[in-house]
Amino acid sequence: MQQTVTEMLRAFPKAPMVEGDELAACIDACFDCAQSCLACADACLAEEHVSMLARCIRLNLDCAGICQTTGQVLTRQYQPDLELLRRTLELCILACGACAVECEHHADQHEHCRICAEACRRCEQACKKLLPVLDGKRAAPH
Amino acid sequence: MQQTVTEMLRAFPKAPMVEGDELAACIDACFDCAQSCLACADACLAEEHVSMLARCIRLNLDCAGICQTTGQVLTRQYQPDLELLRRTLELCILACGACAVECEHHADQHEHCRICAEACRRCEQACKKLLPVLDGKRAAPH
Amino acid sequence: MQQTVTEMLRAFPKAPMVEGDELAACIDACFDCAQSCLACADACLAEEHVSMLARCIRLNLDCAGICQTTGQVLTRQYQPDLELLRRTLELCILACGACAVECEHHADQHEHCRICAEACRRCEQACKKLLPVLDGKRAAPH
Amino acid sequence: MQQTVTEMLRAFPKAPMVEGDELAACIDACFDCAQSCLACADACLAEEHVSMLARCIRLNLDCAGICQTTGQVLTRQYQPDLELLRRTLELCILACGACAVECEHHADQHEHCRICAEACRRCEQACKKLLPVLDGKRAAPH
Repeated sequence: MQQTVTEMLRAFPKAPMVEGDELAACIDACFDCAQSCLACADACLAEEHVSMLARCIRLNLDCAGICQTTGQVLTRQYQPDLELLRRTLELCILACGACAVECEHHADQHEHCRICAEACRRCEQACKKLLPVLDGKRAAPH
Repeated sequence: MQQTVTEMLRAFPKAPMVEGDELAACIDACFDCAQSCLACADACLAEEHVSMLARCIRLNLDCAGICQTTGQVLTRQYQPDLELLRRTLELCILACGACAVECEHHADQHEHCRICAEACRRCEQACKKLLPVLDGKRAAPH
Repeated sequence: MQQTVTEMLRAFPKAPMVEGDELAACIDACFDCAQSCLACADACLAEEHVSMLARCIRLNLDCAGICQTTGQVLTRQYQPDLELLRRTLELCILACGACAVECEHHADQHEHCRICAEACRRCEQACKKLLPVLDGKRAAPH
Repeated sequence: MQQTVTEMLRAFPKAPMVEGDELAACIDACFDCAQSCLACADACLAEEHVSMLARCIRLNLDCAGICQTTGQVLTRQYQPDLELLRRTLELCILACGACAVECEHHADQHEHCRICAEACRRCEQACKKLLPVLDGKRAAPH
């Protein structure tokens, strides 16, 4: 996906919202994490002891929705509200961190939790890398 | 919608996440606001001077996604991460406030912006009312 | 929600996509059903015998996504592709029917399945009522 | 994204819904197309003659929602309703085709429409390739 994301960002007809590769990487990581979380919830449901994974499924669904919305908000370059973007990224970092911690608890028993935890950590890191880029943008006019 | 939301919350098989009507009201307000924002974006696109409404359309779409995700996160009562819920509500308050301010600028010329601003303000208020209820929940075990 | 939906449809600056109340009723029913399905999946997850409800949870999540997308597609009045709208409604009817059948199997034991089945049936009916209205629209120019 | 999709499909704890690479390719193509469509809508909004692109923006948003829901429905392997999956794929093919035709009209003037049309065509093809795989699955027990 990241190649298409990058191409679309470059094809934006006005000045880009931010320079550099952090934005494309973050958008890709958000949708990647959302998909992993939905897949992990589905795989948990297929496990024998579902009830013990209820908190994992719940966090998977919360994190999937938040990552997807974050990816969508970041996809739009035109007329951004930078404070809203920043706070959306911060919520995404929180959701990914919470879901990763939960999935890491089951990573030894369930391969899907191990893979999902890694996708959450990648998304968390990608959001953290994008935050200072947005801050630089905000400071730019001065 | 609020009647079904309330019935479903009551039918939850375990102890409810929170007592009172604030949760059902907030879930309903979130989905109501998401729908209004999508409708406002569509109506803006049909106006003669679209380019002057680009920022409104953009905030409409951001706010719609955030309200929808907030409504979904709040719909799930089982095994909630209260800190994540709280931060999700705070983001929703920010998004609704930003979209309301923008729509209010056009409320005199565009009826859809007036109605959308009102839906945003109702959602903002419903989220603000739910926050202390969640905080009480968090303090409850002590 | 239906009141706001109706107000927003009326505030659309161009000729309405269709006349009558069927569109507003259908949009409201779609979002109502999406919310009920998400709540039912969450309530199923909190039941003792989750594994026996896995198919119900899965159909709940599929139906929630399809109803939500249908509600969003119907919310947009500008420049519609009527064939796409029609086929979206048909998929929504199929999803609601399938989820209703599954929830009805558990309606005696689980109140949340009973309520969710009713929301699915209301949405199925609302979509079926809207289809001929769209067909009339398509035939209108002749 | 496709690598993570493939890994998650392999980590599913029960027998896979279908064999082969078509499922992972289709899930990836759906989310890729959804992102491209959102980006194209945003880029259209930033163009000088927005009103002439209103139909493109509208189809972008419809297609984005339908592709995203299709990607989510396909992500879940447990307890699938194969008829619902098949019909969801058919709607996705219709949406991608309609959006591609529209974007292709503007591909010469707008690079974002050219890239988006290609993403729609890739998604359309990936869905068409998956359909017979699902049909084989349905025929398998006989």
